[in-house]
Formats: sequence, C-alpha cells, structure tokens
Amino acid sequence: MELSVFQFGLVSNLMSLTVAAMGAAAIFFIASRSEVAREYRPALLISGLVVAIAGYHYWQILGSFTDAYVLEAGRYVASGKPFNDAYRYADWLLTVPLLVIELIAVMNLHKQQSRSLMTRLGVAAVAMIALGYPGEVATGVGSSMLWWLLAMVPFLYIVRTLYGEFGEAVERQPDAARSLVSKARLLTVASWTFYPVAYLGGLGASAGGATLLQVGYTVSDLVAKVGLGLFIYAIARAKSASDASDHGTSDLGAASSGGESFAA
Amino acid sequence: MELSVFQFGLVSNLMSLTVAAMGAAAIFFIASRSEVAREYRPALLISGLVVAIAGYHYWQILGSFTDAYVLEAGRYVASGKPFNDAYRYADWLLTVPLLVIELIAVMNLHKQQSRSLMTRLGVAAVAMIALGYPGEVATGVGSSMLWWLLAMVPFLYIVRTLYGEFGEAVERQPDAARSLVSKARLLTVASWTFYPVAYLGGLGASAGGATLLQVGYTVSDLVAKVGLGLFIYAIARAKSASDASDHGTSDLGAASSGGESFAA
Repeated sequence: MELSVFQFGLVSNLMSLTVAAMGAAAIFFIASRSEVAREYRPALLISGLVVAIAGYHYWQILGSFTDAYVLEAGRYVASGKPFNDAYRYADWLLTVPLLVIELIAVMNLHKQQSRSLMTRLGVAAVAMIALGYPGEVATGVGSSMLWWLLAMVPFLYIVRTLYGEFGEAVERQPDAARSLVSKARLLTVASWTFYPVAYLGGLGASAGGATLLQVGYTVSDLVAKVGLGLFIYAIARAKSASDASDHGTSDLGAASSGGESFAA
Repeated sequence: MELSVFQFGLVSNLMSLTVAAMGAAAIFFIASRSEVAREYRPALLISGLVVAIAGYHYWQILGSFTDAYVLEAGRYVASGKPFNDAYRYADWLLTVPLLVIELIAVMNLHKQQSRSLMTRLGVAAVAMIALGYPGEVATGVGSSMLWWLLAMVPFLYIVRTLYGEFGEAVERQPDAARSLVSKARLLTVASWTFYPVAYLGGLGASAGGATLLQVGYTVSDLVAKVGLGLFIYAIARAKSASDASDHGTSDLGAASSGGESFAA
C-alpha cells in the first residue's frame, strides 16, 4: 500500500501526539490522587495505569508504522517491514478490563457488589478482545464475521450490565456525581462502539480507508481512555467534596475548596 | 537545503538542551506542589504536564532534525528523510490550551468564572493552532496568508480576554500576587507573538533563515513554557504565604517560611 505525504504525516503525527497525551494524562491522574478522598484514589490510580499502558503501546505503534514505510519520489511506499497492528490488541487486552474496573471503582459501591461487577465485566472485556483478534487476522470473510459475532456477545453483555445492574447503582449516587457517572458510561459505550463498526467497515483495504481507520482507532482510544479518566477525576472530586460537606468535616482540608476553583 | 557545521550544531545542540530543560522543569513543577497550598497544586501540576509534553516533542524534533541531514565534505546536506516540523504543531495543540488553563488555575477564581474562562480560552487556543497548521503546509502565498489571518482571530480573542475579563480578575488578586500575574500575562502574550511574526517573515527559505526560525521557535517555547511555569510557581508561593497570614494560621507549615528563603 502507498500513502501520500499528507496521509503518512496525519497518521504518524497523531500517533506521536497520542504518546504525549497518554503520558501526560498518566502523570496527571496519578499525581491527582492527593486531591481526592482516600476511597477514590484507587480509581484515579487505575485511570493512570490505563493511559500509561496506552502511551507505551502508541510508542510501539508509532515506531512500527514509521518503519513500515519509506519515502520514494514523494510517496510513502511499503518498506518491506509489516506494520504490526496487533500492538492494539495487546493494549486492549490490558486496558479494556481496567477501564471497566476504574468506572466501577469510582462508584465506591459495597465491597461485594463492586467485586462481583469488576470480575464479571473484567472477564467479559478480556473475552471481547480475545475473540475479536482471530477475526482481525482471519483471511476469509466468513471466519472474520464469525469471530466478530462471537466478540459482540461479551460486548452486549457489558452494555446491558452498565445500563442494568450498574445503572441501578448509578441512581443511588450522590446528586453531585449522578449525572457525571451517566455521561462517563455513555462516553465509554459510544467510544467502544467505534471498534466493531470499523471492523465491519473493512476500512483497511484502500490507502484512504487505512488512514481513516488509524485516525479513528487513535481518536477512539484518546476519548475512551483520557476522556473517561477526566470524568473519573471529576466524579472523584465531586464525591470527595460532597462526602466532606455531608460529614461536616474533611480529611481533605482544602481539597474540597480547591474543587471550587478548578474543574477538569 | 544545506547547513554549515555551525548552523547544524547550533540548532541540534539547542534542541537537546531544551529536552533537558523541559524535563528538569517538569520534575521541579510536579515535585514543588507540596510547597504550596492545596488550591494552587493543580496549577503547578498542569505547568509540569506542559513541559513534560514539550520535552517529549523536543526529543522527537531533535531526532527528526539530526536524521534529516548528513555531513558531506564539511557541509550538512539533506539526507532524504524530511524534517518533520509538524511535531511542533502536535506539541502546541496539547500545550497551548494547557498554558492558558495553568494561568487561570493559579488565580483560584470562583468555580463558574474559572470554568468559563478555561473553556473559552482553551477552545480558542486549539482553534488558533489548528488554523495555523494548514497555512504552514500550504504552498501558495495566498492560502498561507488566509490561514494566518484566520488563526489571528482566536489569537486576538485570547489577548483581548487576558487584558479584559481576566484583567478585572487580576485587579482583585492579593497584593503579593497582582504584579506577578500581570508579568506572567505579559510574558505569555509577548512570547506567543513570536510565532505569527516568524510565520509572516517566511524565514524558512534560506539556510540562515531556517536556522534563525528553529532557534526562535525553541527559545520562544522555553520562555512560554518554563518561564510561565516559574511565574506560576512564584504566584502560588506568594498566594500561599499571603493566605496563611490572612488566616493567622498555616496548614503549609514550613512552606511559607521556605518562601522567605527561596524565590523563583
């Protein structure tokens, strides 16, 4: 496949920007733990791990992409080294279960319900990625479609649980957090939907389609990971402030008043 | 384009110095959060993210610049690999909105005004960079000028807001901080002005001009990012000490007394 200078530049510059954005987000989420109450710190830490893992994988993806092409007479042509898109599956296998876990962790549910939801949705997330991968590398349309259908089963189970059992828990969240959690859930489901749609679209066949696919994957990853992490941060700030005012005291001190002046 | 040994060395050594300076500044701003009151810590953290992101991009810029030239008979001639100046735009797209956000965050304004200013100036900053980029890569003088004019609209909006609405908030800052915030604003506007001027100057055409452009971009980035971050640090120290003396107490302990002995 040949790419124009514009197509190659768009994809490689966006991948590089994503390395920087994921790395900066990792520092932000991990360092911001001290700004929220103790019970929300694991959620921020996991948000930080997700973007740290993604930043590493985008570094590898960027290197593989730039090695796969060489500039010849004003066009980027295949260098002979294949572009390894499987780094994305390695990333998702680690980060997608962690994304559902960070969303559940910031809810601060009863221990038993929290553990049960994390286990079921985490296992479903791993199954979804593991079933999608054979379809990605399959050569026949039939087996590619079969694996897509199999991967949709855990995906739909996750969506149903987020709007069913998890949804009931959302209704019990404090006022300050309820709407933020709903938006975080919508952002997660909407950004995840890009992947099966892109997979079905078979975008990879032409240079324009392959460019669009890489841009789409990258933007979806930024929204699903940095975007969700910023919601987790806002939810943790709002709930810390709300908990402190409920109890008429605060082990956060100025953290809650800091919440007045700084919003994500 | 051919560069002399002096020109190539000046640019590449300055880029490498900038990787080190940005990385060191990131450690300084992030680690110094514990020296200021809680409400100013997000401003220092964001200052740290800005220089961390810039340090990463200067690492990429340095690699791309040194790959783009090869030494032949005492002159640096083009190697065939293009120098990717677009890393600068990827950097600015992330850091320029964060620069206005760190300046607003250290003011500790009311939540609503803070959020409104951050949103409007952040969006204007992204628009400014996004509109500048097509002009940078455009080949015709006409379209290059058109994009320059379009990018100037959000730039002038930012300047007007920093001296209008933001300026009124500056007047309400405590005595200890007012003059520092004014200087930080002036430094921001002055260092940002280099970019549209350099763009108009069309410096890239000759070897001497291209050298001057790279040196100018790099020095402006150091002033706009490390320089502003040092002001944010000084403002946060001054306001922490002033808040503590207003309340007749201090949850900062040694932080305010530390402020006596160390000034940025």
